Amino acid sequence: MLHFDSDYMEGMHPKILEALTRTNMEKTTGYGLDEYCVKAREAIRHACQAPDAEVHFLVGGTQTNATIIRALLRPHEGVLAAATGHIAVHESGAIEAGGHKVLTLAHNCGKITAEAVDEYMQRFYADESFEHMVFPGMVYVSLPTEYGTLYSLKELEALAEVCRKRNLKLFADGARLGYALACEECDVTFADLARLCDVFYIGGTKCGAMFGEAVVMRKGLVSHFFTIVKQQGALLAKGRMLGLQFLTLFTDNLYLDIARHAVEQAARIKKALVERGYELYFDSPTNQVFVTLDAEQEARLRAATTFTEWERLADGRLVVRLATSWATRQEDVEKLIEKL
Amino acid sequence: MLHFDSDYMEGMHPKILEALTRTNMEKTTGYGLDEYCVKAREAIRHACQAPDAEVHFLVGGTQTNATIIRALLRPHEGVLAAATGHIAVHESGAIEAGGHKVLTLAHNCGKITAEAVDEYMQRFYADESFEHMVFPGMVYVSLPTEYGTLYSLKELEALAEVCRKRNLKLFADGARLGYALACEECDVTFADLARLCDVFYIGGTKCGAMFGEAVVMRKGLVSHFFTIVKQQGALLAKGRMLGLQFLTLFTDNLYLDIARHAVEQAARIKKALVERGYELYFDSPTNQVFVTLDAEQEARLRAATTFTEWERLADGRLVVRLATSWATRQEDVEKLIEKL
Amino acid sequence: MLHFDSDYMEGMHPKILEALTRTNMEKTTGYGLDEYCVKAREAIRHACQAPDAEVHFLVGGTQTNATIIRALLRPHEGVLAAATGHIAVHESGAIEAGGHKVLTLAHNCGKITAEAVDEYMQRFYADESFEHMVFPGMVYVSLPTEYGTLYSLKELEALAEVCRKRNLKLFADGARLGYALACEECDVTFADLARLCDVFYIGGTKCGAMFGEAVVMRKGLVSHFFTIVKQQGALLAKGRMLGLQFLTLFTDNLYLDIARHAVEQAARIKKALVERGYELYFDSPTNQVFVTLDAEQEARLRAATTFTEWERLADGRLVVRLATSWATRQEDVEKLIEKL
Amino acid sequence: MLHFDSDYMEGMHPKILEALTRTNMEKTTGYGLDEYCVKAREAIRHACQAPDAEVHFLVGGTQTNATIIRALLRPHEGVLAAATGHIAVHESGAIEAGGHKVLTLAHNCGKITAEAVDEYMQRFYADESFEHMVFPGMVYVSLPTEYGTLYSLKELEALAEVCRKRNLKLFADGARLGYALACEECDVTFADLARLCDVFYIGGTKCGAMFGEAVVMRKGLVSHFFTIVKQQGALLAKGRMLGLQFLTLFTDNLYLDIARHAVEQAARIKKALVERGYELYFDSPTNQVFVTLDAEQEARLRAATTFTEWERLADGRLVVRLATSWATRQEDVEKLIEKL
Repeated sequence: MLHFDSDYMEGMHPKILEALTRTNMEKTTGYGLDEYCVKAREAIRHACQAPDAEVHFLVGGTQTNATIIRALLRPHEGVLAAATGHIAVHESGAIEAGGHKVLTLAHNCGKITAEAVDEYMQRFYADESFEHMVFPGMVYVSLPTEYGTLYSLKELEALAEVCRKRNLKLFADGARLGYALACEECDVTFADLARLCDVFYIGGTKCGAMFGEAVVMRKGLVSHFFTIVKQQGALLAKGRMLGLQFLTLFTDNLYLDIARHAVEQAARIKKALVERGYELYFDSPTNQVFVTLDAEQEARLRAATTFTEWERLADGRLVVRLATSWATRQEDVEKLIEKL
Repeated sequence: MLHFDSDYMEGMHPKILEALTRTNMEKTTGYGLDEYCVKAREAIRHACQAPDAEVHFLVGGTQTNATIIRALLRPHEGVLAAATGHIAVHESGAIEAGGHKVLTLAHNCGKITAEAVDEYMQRFYADESFEHMVFPGMVYVSLPTEYGTLYSLKELEALAEVCRKRNLKLFADGARLGYALACEECDVTFADLARLCDVFYIGGTKCGAMFGEAVVMRKGLVSHFFTIVKQQGALLAKGRMLGLQFLTLFTDNLYLDIARHAVEQAARIKKALVERGYELYFDSPTNQVFVTLDAEQEARLRAATTFTEWERLADGRLVVRLATSWATRQEDVEKLIEKL
Repeated sequence: MLHFDSDYMEGMHPKILEALTRTNMEKTTGYGLDEYCVKAREAIRHACQAPDAEVHFLVGGTQTNATIIRALLRPHEGVLAAATGHIAVHESGAIEAGGHKVLTLAHNCGKITAEAVDEYMQRFYADESFEHMVFPGMVYVSLPTEYGTLYSLKELEALAEVCRKRNLKLFADGARLGYALACEECDVTFADLARLCDVFYIGGTKCGAMFGEAVVMRKGLVSHFFTIVKQQGALLAKGRMLGLQFLTLFTDNLYLDIARHAVEQAARIKKALVERGYELYFDSPTNQVFVTLDAEQEARLRAATTFTEWERLADGRLVVRLATSWATRQEDVEKLIEKL
Repeated sequence: MLHFDSDYMEGMHPKILEALTRTNMEKTTGYGLDEYCVKAREAIRHACQAPDAEVHFLVGGTQTNATIIRALLRPHEGVLAAATGHIAVHESGAIEAGGHKVLTLAHNCGKITAEAVDEYMQRFYADESFEHMVFPGMVYVSLPTEYGTLYSLKELEALAEVCRKRNLKLFADGARLGYALACEECDVTFADLARLCDVFYIGGTKCGAMFGEAVVMRKGLVSHFFTIVKQQGALLAKGRMLGLQFLTLFTDNLYLDIARHAVEQAARIKKALVERGYELYFDSPTNQVFVTLDAEQEARLRAATTFTEWERLADGRLVVRLATSWATRQEDVEKLIEKL
């Protein structure tokens, strides 16, 4: 049986395992104050062309979203997001548990637009009762989105522009960032994100690390973030484990190289699906392939591989997601294609 | 200038003022433990034919919603409500500030259906990822809704049935309850609410009192509600003020009588509007009249009265709300009708 | 039976009742935006010699404490208070429910000192682990304290000075403020409070009003306080009721005059107690009298009046509190004294 | 320079590294639903002689404390803990951020007693105002305490007994549990903890793992803990990493064996300190050594090793903590002893 369920089924990239093995018995100080974290921060700032950015390492995505939002919003503020955004659907109410409402916008394949944000703000202030409502304080976007789609640089610039104009923070969830940036279709870079967003993070868990997310913040955005991370239970005692992983990923361009591999494997699967007459549900250019299966196709695919069930359509067809990752083996992709 | 902005523009019903005046210099214990509160609770239980119900007095609506929801839900649970529900829109995020997500359902003139709730639950448990999502723990309905519409007894019974089946609490926000129950179209009674809901409240602020909401709970629903009310800052020190108000409202049927007056005045306005060719936006049978105004009508109405702006439609017309109350004078209604 | 349990047993001062009666059927806008609120704010600013201060009206004390603290602190911050402070003991955890820790200091008859605050801050920053602890962000004092004691102007100035130096907000809970300012022993004025505190409130509930607390804030201290008040369920729909009460209390010096009456009655009781050989537990100059009773005294007092039990001492004696108020009748004080 | 700062300076036990290496490229499902987690749970249940216990794996200590407390307490409840408890001091207010007050008790070398809990409860219910206060809902103890001290079986049984009587949950924080259970002085076992506590956790981070805490709960204690873990941002995507670590630690008694090593090394250091005339600050039998240094001793120790500064005494002497761990090398201990 093959496994294309998700991009976090394997452990860690061999080079990370090697780094952990090499340094295992070293003694360092905790909580991310060690030399590996210092160097990893430096490498990330370099990749982002953002010498002043603050870089913090957290363990997982939901935790990172909740911590950033709690740290940045005031009590009367909420966060604007696509109705399909991870924070809106799949975090068990972590944002609300921190006291803030997720204000949802209609989406197009997981994406929101600068226009929609602007219109929301216009309506908000036009409403006689706006002081009885939740003030939007931040815009949350996912890169890539939960549907594997991409924001273009132009779209992102427009969002940044409307955020500046409307006094909103811009936050990009990059849990799968590598799989966006490594796409040919993607004209956004780390440096663009650092320039346009108030805060974003570089996902490790799904992109080669065992765990870990690297938060990149505009300098001076928020004070005492360290303590808020601690309060949220998101501060790793043996913080160097995060530093070592990101230092490895940001050495010799490893992060983007392994992400590109995943994207290429996904493209091969997509191409084969289309050739064999399967219907793609969205045209995601990243490492996630969404395909709509009729009964026969469903049976065939179930016999070949595990996958994630996305949605059962009204007509009975099943939408599923196949995900590749840095660890996907070419031979497994070939086996899958044979069995389609 | 006339004023039909809302149903909380005047002070309190004269009989309440009389009761406050008569008892003003009495000394009683605080926090709702006095004799007036005891009697008011008894009167409410009697009206509800619910001799075992717990009755608590709080000050205002948002506070009451937030306190009930915080008291009843566990951390992983949220509350299902119409997308137009007061808790979803006009409470500045009070529910989220208490840690819980408002899960919205599509509405029909402010109403949700048992079918929609059932379907939500079915989809929820059918989703592979439901354990990563917010569990619905309660259904919230407004009686009347924010659009002045009513649930029939049959609709309410169906909601209660699906809540029982799906293990959800049923909570009815009755901030304007009098204006629902006093409608001819309404076949629901206090006793029905006490029988069908886990908890509901009888709005005082908008229905004759200076302030105050009377919460009616199924016995044993939740322990230590008193302390949770205190924690939420919702415990009035001079609690007897609440007892006196509700005792007056529940003596000689005052509560429904004065609500009926409001509903009748609204009906007169509605009738006159229709006769003069105005277009109603919803057909609300309660004390709120929603009307869509073209430019000329808007100008004419602005010259006659103040009102609440509801929504500017895409075609430029304005939806406004006119509200009557227990205190609306017949002569003011006549003056308004003349100027339409 | 006499009643000296607390200072919130009666309704409202007759002049307030008169004002509510006179204006009862007027129609005004809600939420504190009416003319009475405007005038009441002006009168309070005038009394405080603080023409720029922001004034907000809330309903009760716990609510006001919780709202102010939630509005002013960031997530990593807590509030320093005497271990006996109302927020530390008698608010059912309202501050923690809002996400913030109450950091307690040793007290002297309910009071804390500038030195203790300074020392706390010094130790805090000297601790290697301070970034893993709750940052003090505010100092909370009660005026008078829960034990009826007073801060002198000098003490308050020292607290303000250390707060400025240590970058802490200074917040004074004035739930019984009248009974402090009306004491002969008190050299603090409204103007001093407005000058020295970032925020304080003027208690209405215990000092002549039916309910209500008037928050006085340094201009620009915090934005969107209105919405945070709404979110906390602390915004009264018929806000003019608060304006009318405070306008009455701040007309012709009523607030301090009626508080002075209470303080004088308490002084008479205290004097009589001492003359008859009772032992005072603290020497409170305000409207609260704390007395330690042996078994015989306890029996005698129980036969005469109701009171609040404060604490049962290890030797079996009982500390009780007798409270006077604006409404205390001279003849009741005389009857009490006779029976001591 | 030697390093005896803390017990989380090294990576992970070599056997864990070996297990991670061996399984690195396997594909498993996420979120702790994989086979390694299943086996690790089984091994822990076996060690605890608790075949029905629920076992959950979280990442770090503060996170685990906050999640358990939020999951188990109702809104009006707080947690009783020693004033020195980790949750009371060193978690940046994580418990309060979750809405609950930490109610502190006086401690003896970090320990609290059943008598103190019982007395607290007695006073609580004897207080006229208890319904205005935070209800104790849980007792939190640390094993070993933050001062390296131990509860005897008898003390723990007494605590469990008072908790049962007073309707409190008993929760033991075992972030360093191995270093307690491996002490000769300790007569408590895993099975005792599973029998006496409602919930406790077995610390991995400080006892041989790279990270991870294993929560052991009485069956049926709380529903939907998985979703609450997710909401708290405490659910590791690649959950098998936790399973693999705990499976390794609970194979062939590794957990206690490596903890015993640490305790023995600490005992050697303690013995040497005493022989050389140093004064121990507490007599901790576990892996932490607390010693009071005069100026000369401080200088000497600073030249030899890094350590944690605990407290500067009024007389100028410094209390420091030296910690050993599973990874402490005998030769380093010998070098340290030479330089004392």
